[in-house]
Amino acid sequence: MRLTRFTDNALRTLTYLALHDEAPARITDVARRMGMSEDHVAKVVARLADLGYVTTLRGRSGGVRLARTPERINIGEVVRATEDNMVLVECFDPATNQCPIAPACRLARALDEALVAFLAVLDRYSVADLVAKPRTLTRLLHA
Amino acid sequence: MRLTRFTDNALRTLTYLALHDEAPARITDVARRMGMSEDHVAKVVARLADLGYVTTLRGRSGGVRLARTPERINIGEVVRATEDNMVLVECFDPATNQCPIAPACRLARALDEALVAFLAVLDRYSVADLVAKPRTLTRLLHA
Repeated sequence: MRLTRFTDNALRTLTYLALHDEAPARITDVARRMGMSEDHVAKVVARLADLGYVTTLRGRSGGVRLARTPERINIGEVVRATEDNMVLVECFDPATNQCPIAPACRLARALDEALVAFLAVLDRYSVADLVAKPRTLTRLLHA
Repeated sequence: MRLTRFTDNALRTLTYLALHDEAPARITDVARRMGMSEDHVAKVVARLADLGYVTTLRGRSGGVRLARTPERINIGEVVRATEDNMVLVECFDPATNQCPIAPACRLARALDEALVAFLAVLDRYSVADLVAKPRTLTRLLHA
């Protein structure tokens, strides 16, 4: 079980931006400092801008910055928005399901309940919680 | 976010066997009836036998059957045993992590808490719960 790389990169990008709120950050810096490819960061930033989490600014002193305070960026919401699907097993998706007993089997229901519990925990966290130790984090970033 | 196909197939195989407890089932039948490849079922059965969930019997009337009652096969335990890893994001695994802030960032902790909640729900279910409607399930299987 694993979240997509896209979600992982989205959370890293938001975390980096929460630690660098003094000026817009350049994609090349986010990528280099956080161990991601520039291409991945650019895709993630485009999606996060669509979702209203970040703002991009053009020009020489341009870059990307958070569009909300870190307290207002909920981790559960980000994960729901960036995961391309939450099809835990085949029978979650009637369009592609091959299992004949899906209509009466209770597996999907049990897994759905587990997924709700998973996301409910993440709903209790914001980006501000991830960066609760900003000085240590900034030191690690620039080590 | 998705469980592995291996876990999905393991749960399907256990469900099928719970519905066919009158005699050992042949791998070819499990595969055909449950929409899996024989090769996948054979691999899953070998692992489930190692884990003590099923017994395989050789010979003309051989096959595979549950080694415990469905009530004693816990879904949370099966998922823990069959998922090859629970590395939800890169920073869960220090051996491959590329994110420099992992030592002080609280993301892994939040995700770990969410994973515990996910598995705690599955711990409340057994294979017996999945087949709570055996007649309907058997009808679907042989439709």
